[in-house]
Amino acid sequence: MALQPLLLEGRWQPPRHPAGSFRAVSPFTGTPLDEEYPISIFDEVERALRAGVLASEELPSLAVEKTADFFDLFARLIEERADAIVQIAHRETGLPEEPRLRNVELPRTTGQLRMAAEAVRERSWCRAVIDSRAGIRSMYGPLGGPVAVFGPGNFPLAFNAVAGGDFAAALAAGNPVIAKGHPLIPGTTRLLAETAFEAVTRAGLPPATVQMLYHVERDSGPSLVSHSLLAGTAFTGSRSAGLRLKEAADRAGKPIYLEMSSLNPLVLLPGALEERPGEIARELFESCALGAGQFCTKPGLVLLIRGRAADDFLAKVTELFRSSPPGVLSGRTVLDRLASSVESLRRHGAEILAGGRVAAGEGFRYANTLLRVAAATFSNAPQAFQAEAFGTASLVILAEDIEELCGALSHLEGSLAGSIYSQRGNFDEAAYSRVEARLRVKVGRLLNDRMPTGVAVSPAMNHGGPYPATGHPGFTAVGIPASLLRFAALRCYDGVRPHRLPPELKDRNPNGRMWRLIDGEWTRRDL
Amino acid sequence: MALQPLLLEGRWQPPRHPAGSFRAVSPFTGTPLDEEYPISIFDEVERALRAGVLASEELPSLAVEKTADFFDLFARLIEERADAIVQIAHRETGLPEEPRLRNVELPRTTGQLRMAAEAVRERSWCRAVIDSRAGIRSMYGPLGGPVAVFGPGNFPLAFNAVAGGDFAAALAAGNPVIAKGHPLIPGTTRLLAETAFEAVTRAGLPPATVQMLYHVERDSGPSLVSHSLLAGTAFTGSRSAGLRLKEAADRAGKPIYLEMSSLNPLVLLPGALEERPGEIARELFESCALGAGQFCTKPGLVLLIRGRAADDFLAKVTELFRSSPPGVLSGRTVLDRLASSVESLRRHGAEILAGGRVAAGEGFRYANTLLRVAAATFSNAPQAFQAEAFGTASLVILAEDIEELCGALSHLEGSLAGSIYSQRGNFDEAAYSRVEARLRVKVGRLLNDRMPTGVAVSPAMNHGGPYPATGHPGFTAVGIPASLLRFAALRCYDGVRPHRLPPELKDRNPNGRMWRLIDGEWTRRDL
Repeated sequence: MALQPLLLEGRWQPPRHPAGSFRAVSPFTGTPLDEEYPISIFDEVERALRAGVLASEELPSLAVEKTADFFDLFARLIEERADAIVQIAHRETGLPEEPRLRNVELPRTTGQLRMAAEAVRERSWCRAVIDSRAGIRSMYGPLGGPVAVFGPGNFPLAFNAVAGGDFAAALAAGNPVIAKGHPLIPGTTRLLAETAFEAVTRAGLPPATVQMLYHVERDSGPSLVSHSLLAGTAFTGSRSAGLRLKEAADRAGKPIYLEMSSLNPLVLLPGALEERPGEIARELFESCALGAGQFCTKPGLVLLIRGRAADDFLAKVTELFRSSPPGVLSGRTVLDRLASSVESLRRHGAEILAGGRVAAGEGFRYANTLLRVAAATFSNAPQAFQAEAFGTASLVILAEDIEELCGALSHLEGSLAGSIYSQRGNFDEAAYSRVEARLRVKVGRLLNDRMPTGVAVSPAMNHGGPYPATGHPGFTAVGIPASLLRFAALRCYDGVRPHRLPPELKDRNPNGRMWRLIDGEWTRRDL
Repeated sequence: MALQPLLLEGRWQPPRHPAGSFRAVSPFTGTPLDEEYPISIFDEVERALRAGVLASEELPSLAVEKTADFFDLFARLIEERADAIVQIAHRETGLPEEPRLRNVELPRTTGQLRMAAEAVRERSWCRAVIDSRAGIRSMYGPLGGPVAVFGPGNFPLAFNAVAGGDFAAALAAGNPVIAKGHPLIPGTTRLLAETAFEAVTRAGLPPATVQMLYHVERDSGPSLVSHSLLAGTAFTGSRSAGLRLKEAADRAGKPIYLEMSSLNPLVLLPGALEERPGEIARELFESCALGAGQFCTKPGLVLLIRGRAADDFLAKVTELFRSSPPGVLSGRTVLDRLASSVESLRRHGAEILAGGRVAAGEGFRYANTLLRVAAATFSNAPQAFQAEAFGTASLVILAEDIEELCGALSHLEGSLAGSIYSQRGNFDEAAYSRVEARLRVKVGRLLNDRMPTGVAVSPAMNHGGPYPATGHPGFTAVGIPASLLRFAALRCYDGVRPHRLPPELKDRNPNGRMWRLIDGEWTRRDL
C-alpha cells in the first residue's frame, strides 16, 4: 500500500525517501489499522524549515484579517467534517465518540480557533505600550521564522499539532507552523491537516503557512528544535521526550515551551473529609477516570491526615476504583509505562489499595489503581514517588498531622494544578493557610473544592506551572490571548518615524477596539 | 589586612573559610587598590540560599508597602552618600565622576528604585486578569525562592547587582535577592550593599531579603544558578560567562535571564550619507566612545553601500576615531579581550582604518578602533566578524548594493538594538522597507536616525532581544514595570473562595488605581 502523503512546501506530496513507515493501532484490539504513514528523514524537515522561513517573510505583508479568516474557515470546515474527524479520532485513541470527542473536544477545538480569529482581529494580545513623551512604542510580534508544534496523543483534536491550542497560538501570533503529529493519531492529524490546508488556500495565506509531518526519526526532533532556521517550539507530551527536546533547544538559544508530566496534588483537609467523604470520593474517582486517566491535570497525588474520617473516605474511594470497569488507553506505550510506574511505586513501598495489574480482555486496559504511602516514606524518597503514571492511577499520601503534610508538600515538584478541599465553614481555615503557602509556589493553578481536570478556555486560565510541569513558569498553554505570548518577541520602536510604525502602534487605534497602554492608561482611544 | 565582610544570612559577617581573596585595580595605573575582598566558597553560597528561602517564605505575609518603603529609603540613602559612592565607583572603573557617574548613572539608579517603589504600590505590574463568569482569576507573583543577580562591571551603579535594574525588578516582584558582585567593583558593591541593608532594616523587611557576595569560585556560579533552592537568575556580562550559567540553569529547569554581548547593527542608507555625513560621523563616534565603548548598546557593526557618499563619510568618521584620545577601560580583562577581538577581525580580513593597538601610557587604554570589511567577506564568515569587542571599536561592512547589504543582514545574530539612518525626505523609503524587514527580527529595539546607546527607562522600552543578545526574546531588562515579569510566575486561582484571594484579585480594587483586566475590559474599578 502506498504511504500517505505529507503536507510539505505548500502542497501534499508523497514522501521521497522515508526513513520507514508506521500504522496506527486500534486500542480496542491491539491490531494495526489499514493506512500506512511515512517516517520523515531530516531532509524533509529541512525542506519544511526553508519553506516555513519564506512563509514567515511573506506573512507580515499580508493583512492580519487573512489569518483571522483562516481560523474562522478552519473552524467551519472542521464542523462540516465532524463525523469523519470524530470517527477516526475514536478509532485511533479509543476515546468515546460521544460525549467526549463530538460534544466536548471538537467544540473546544473550533471554539479555540474562533477565539484565535477574534484575538487576531482585535489585536490586544500584542500588548501595545506607547510612551508618547519619550517617543518609544513597543508590542509583541512574531518570532521571525516557523514554529514547530509537537502535539500529544491524549487530546487528538483540542491539542492536535495541526488544530489545537499551540497551533492556534503560534499562528495567531504571526508564525507559520510546522506540525509534528503524534504517532498514535496519524489519520486524525492527516484529516485535520487536509482541512487546515484547504482553509489556508481559501484564506489566501502563503501555502507553506501550515506544514505537517506525521513522524520523524528519533534524532530529527532535537535537530529540528535547535535548527538555525527555526524560531521556536511548542511541545506537549512525556517528560522524557520533552527534556530531550528542551536540552537541544536550550543549547541553541531557541525558545521552547513544554507541557510535560504533572501530578496535580490534591489536599483533602480533615473538616472536608468529615463533612462529605462520599461526595469527594466520587469526584476524585471521576476525575482520575476521565479519558481513562489520560489528562495532564489528573490528580495523581492525594494528601490527607490520618484519622477516622480519612479511613472512611479511603474505604469509599477504594470501592469506587475497584468496582468500576477500566477505560481504554490510547496505546501500547501508555499501558506499558503505566504498568511500570505502578510497579516502581510498589517497589518503593506504596501499598496497592485497588488495581495494580493489567486488566483482562482485548486491547489496552489497566485496572483502576489506587495506592497508599505514609508521608514519612514519601518524604524520604520524594522523587521515586513522583513518577509519571498516565492512566487511572493515583497515590494517596497519608500524614500523621498537618506538620507532616506540609513537609511532604515542600518536596513536591512543580505541577500544572493543585487543589485544596476544606470544610464549607471555617473549620479548616488555619490548616488551609499553611497548606496554601506551600502549595501556591508549586502549581500554576490553585483550586478550591474542585478537581483540576476541567481546564476552561478563559483569558484568566493558567495551564502552565513551575518546572518540570512546563519549561517556564510565566506562560500558559491554554487561554487565548495569553497563550499567544509564548510565540512572540518584544519589539520596541524608538524614535521610528510615524508612517513606518506598525498599525498597532500608530497614533490612531487600528480598529477602535484594541486595548493599548498609552502613557500609563489602558485605553481604546486614539493617541 | 582583614578581608572585607560579607552580607550573609541577614548580617555582615567575616568570611569563614574564603577560597581566596582579590583586590580591585585602578584602571588609571593598573595597580591594586587597598581593600581586600573574599572569594566565597560554595558553603557560603548555600548559606545564602537557605537564608533566602526563609526570607521568601516571610515576604508574602508582609504588606507590600514595606517593600515600597525599602526602595524609597534605599534611593534616599544613596543620594545622601552620593559623594562616597561616586568616588569609589570612579576609582574602580575609571568612569568620569562628572557627568557620567554623579549626574547620569546615580540619578538613573535612584530613579529606577523609586519607579520600583511606585510599581510595588500601584500593583498593575502583576497583570491581574479576572474572568468573573468562569470564577477564574490570575496574576503574576514571586517565583517562590531567592533570585540570584549577577551584576556587570560597566555600569557600577545602574546595573549593580545590589542596586541596579535587575535587583530592583527581582525584589519588586517579591523575591529576596542574592547579589553576586562584579570583581571589578567590590568597593562600590560593598557600599551599595551597606546602604541597601540599612534600608532593609529600617523598612522592616526580613534581614536576608538582600544578601551579597563579592565573588565566588569558578564552579560556584553554575552550582548556584542550578541549585534546587534557587528560584531564578539575572545575569549581565560577557557571552562566555553567560552561556556557562545558562547551560547549568537550563539543565535544572531554572529560569535565567541573560543580557550578553550585542553588536547593535547600524544601517546608514545612501540618502542619509549624502545629506549629513559629518553629523552622522560625529554621532557614530560619540556613541562608540561613550563610557570608553563599554556599553552593551554600542554600535559595533555599521552597514553601508559603497559610493562617493560612503567614502566621504568614512573619511570623516575615521578622522574622528584617529584624532580623539582613547578612554580608560575598566579592567585588564576588558583591554585584553578587546585587543584579541580586534586581532581576530584583522586576521579574518578586516582592514584597520583607525587604532588597532594598545594606547601608550599608564592604565588600561586602547586606541579608538575602526575596521572595514567587504560585505561579501563578512557573509562568507559571519560568525568570525561578530565577535564581542567591548571598547571603542566598530566594524564597517561595505556592500556593493542594497541586495548585498540585505544579504549581510540575514547573517546577523540577535542584538539588543539596531538603527536605520535615512534621508530626511523619502529618498531612502524603498531601501528602508527592505532593510527593516530583515533587521526587525534581529533586534529587540529598532531606532531611526539615532544611535542605540541611550536606553531610556520607559514602560515602552525593550532592552532585550533575540539570542544571543539575551536568553529569551520576550523580556526586557530595562523599563519598569515590564522588567518585573522576568522574576514572576503566573498564578491562577480557580474557584478559590473570595476571602482567600490575594488583594490584587479580590472584587475590590486594592488601592483604587491598579489596572486590572476584568471580563475583557482594562479598568481601575472594583468588580
